[in-house]
Amino acid sequence: MINKLISKIKATNAPIVVGLDPMMKFVPEHIQKRAFRDCGETLEGAAEAIWQYNKEIVDNIYDIVPAVKPQIAMYEQFGIPGLMAFKKTIDYCKAKDLVVIGDIKRGDIGSTSEAYAAGHLGKVKVGSKSCYGFDEDFVTVNPYLGSDGVNPFIKVCKEEKKGIFVLVKTSNPSSGEFQDRAIADAQGRPLYEIVGEKVAQWGEEHMGDAYSYIGAVVGATYPEMGRILRKIMPKSYILVPGYGAQGGKGKDLAHFFNEDGLGAIINSSRGIIAAYQQEKYASFGAERFGEASRAAVEDMRDDIAEALDNR
Amino acid sequence: MINKLISKIKATNAPIVVGLDPMMKFVPEHIQKRAFRDCGETLEGAAEAIWQYNKEIVDNIYDIVPAVKPQIAMYEQFGIPGLMAFKKTIDYCKAKDLVVIGDIKRGDIGSTSEAYAAGHLGKVKVGSKSCYGFDEDFVTVNPYLGSDGVNPFIKVCKEEKKGIFVLVKTSNPSSGEFQDRAIADAQGRPLYEIVGEKVAQWGEEHMGDAYSYIGAVVGATYPEMGRILRKIMPKSYILVPGYGAQGGKGKDLAHFFNEDGLGAIINSSRGIIAAYQQEKYASFGAERFGEASRAAVEDMRDDIAEALDNR
Repeated sequence: MINKLISKIKATNAPIVVGLDPMMKFVPEHIQKRAFRDCGETLEGAAEAIWQYNKEIVDNIYDIVPAVKPQIAMYEQFGIPGLMAFKKTIDYCKAKDLVVIGDIKRGDIGSTSEAYAAGHLGKVKVGSKSCYGFDEDFVTVNPYLGSDGVNPFIKVCKEEKKGIFVLVKTSNPSSGEFQDRAIADAQGRPLYEIVGEKVAQWGEEHMGDAYSYIGAVVGATYPEMGRILRKIMPKSYILVPGYGAQGGKGKDLAHFFNEDGLGAIINSSRGIIAAYQQEKYASFGAERFGEASRAAVEDMRDDIAEALDNR
Repeated sequence: MINKLISKIKATNAPIVVGLDPMMKFVPEHIQKRAFRDCGETLEGAAEAIWQYNKEIVDNIYDIVPAVKPQIAMYEQFGIPGLMAFKKTIDYCKAKDLVVIGDIKRGDIGSTSEAYAAGHLGKVKVGSKSCYGFDEDFVTVNPYLGSDGVNPFIKVCKEEKKGIFVLVKTSNPSSGEFQDRAIADAQGRPLYEIVGEKVAQWGEEHMGDAYSYIGAVVGATYPEMGRILRKIMPKSYILVPGYGAQGGKGKDLAHFFNEDGLGAIINSSRGIIAAYQQEKYASFGAERFGEASRAAVEDMRDDIAEALDNR
């Protein structure tokens, strides 16, 4: 799957993943109204609204990006109906040949991580049969519990030729509170570097052609740390959130890439899916929000290409 | 909700939470057969099996324990039908007046944690209405992203009078890989202590009568660390996993309690729900697995009481 992701990045010339994080405030009025009319102001109505919203965005961008990243929390908040919309979104995107990165940030003790890995990347045994649960291509994993909590994901990745992105240095303002703490017996280097080393080590166990199936999450908001982590994990793809709305800019991104122009994939969520709400794309209007998203992808692609050209 | 939890602990004299982690290998043959006959060897069949299994256990223990802790991964692995069984289990346990701790270990950047908090502890806005998603009483939270990722949970806890348990030192063998690293600018103290201090600080913001709504997870498998963390977080309830199957013993537990005999709640999952598979309770047979679970709760209650008496 990492090979597929890379070949699609090359084909589209867009190291971009679109975050399908459908907060209600992004969903245009006319879509909400229709969904509430059909399903009521209920969890079902909310789920229908976000599904219709996603579908129109995907229809407008599927041919110019390699991947999407639905953030499960935005669906899970609407309970079972919301998670049905999550599953529907995954299936729809896969049918459009997009690589699907489930942003689930799971991670637990061994036997529990096994269940998460089976449910999101692999299959579960039911009697004499095997069944797929959510069936994403990649998921994000939280490393706080150590190798025990990550290894079950790696095992399933090997069986299914799928991948994970492990949280190393997250994009949020308080990510330093624990992640940046200086580790005494590692020459005072920050915890995120130690986690990064571990990612590189886990990655060696499961290599694709040029990059590993085991990648990392490093926020665009911390470009200097990105530069260091790029070297610590040379064979790991870096999933970079925080571009756009969270403050990351194109010129900050160059550090996350290797010399080969590969090695990073940049996420944008509201910058793309709610582009129609920005002044820059306002002329599309709420009715043509999908076209606004497409224009925002094209601008983001050019911004990144320029940053890579100028480095 | 922390006040309710404590009053129920006192009433049952059992600082015990039963982990409803229905792995298929625990579900008795006759229940699996019936569920597969009715719903097929499908995700729906698996969900039906774990729901029937849970129901019978809950019916046998609800009057002698204060709380249950369903581990969402064991349901999530069976996709949407599995999560429907999770929700059904929550609702059933709440109807039996049990306190429900959703073991979800979520945690993300601020806006995303907000969605998790709304979906699991609070309510979401849909048009002019508010709807509840999963509606547990407490959830577990992963702190790797720092305050940003925890504060949205605390906010909802205040609104809804609910609580969280933040992962501090987990019970698994590799938990030390990152959690035990010595922090250079904190006199070489381990990361989990730093996280524990933060939990105490977060906890001050949201106090119940004697204890805070903001608790911590510390594994029974690390009793010496439990002793230290007990002092660092005097007002935080400690949720202690790892008793029984993971190796923690009654005598190791005393450290987790305060002088008042409160301050800790011990989880057992397979030790209770799969008691019928142990030699000790084999005489119940698979048909009477619920009674075996009740006997295992009674033995665990006595083991803990003895440990507290002997300290």
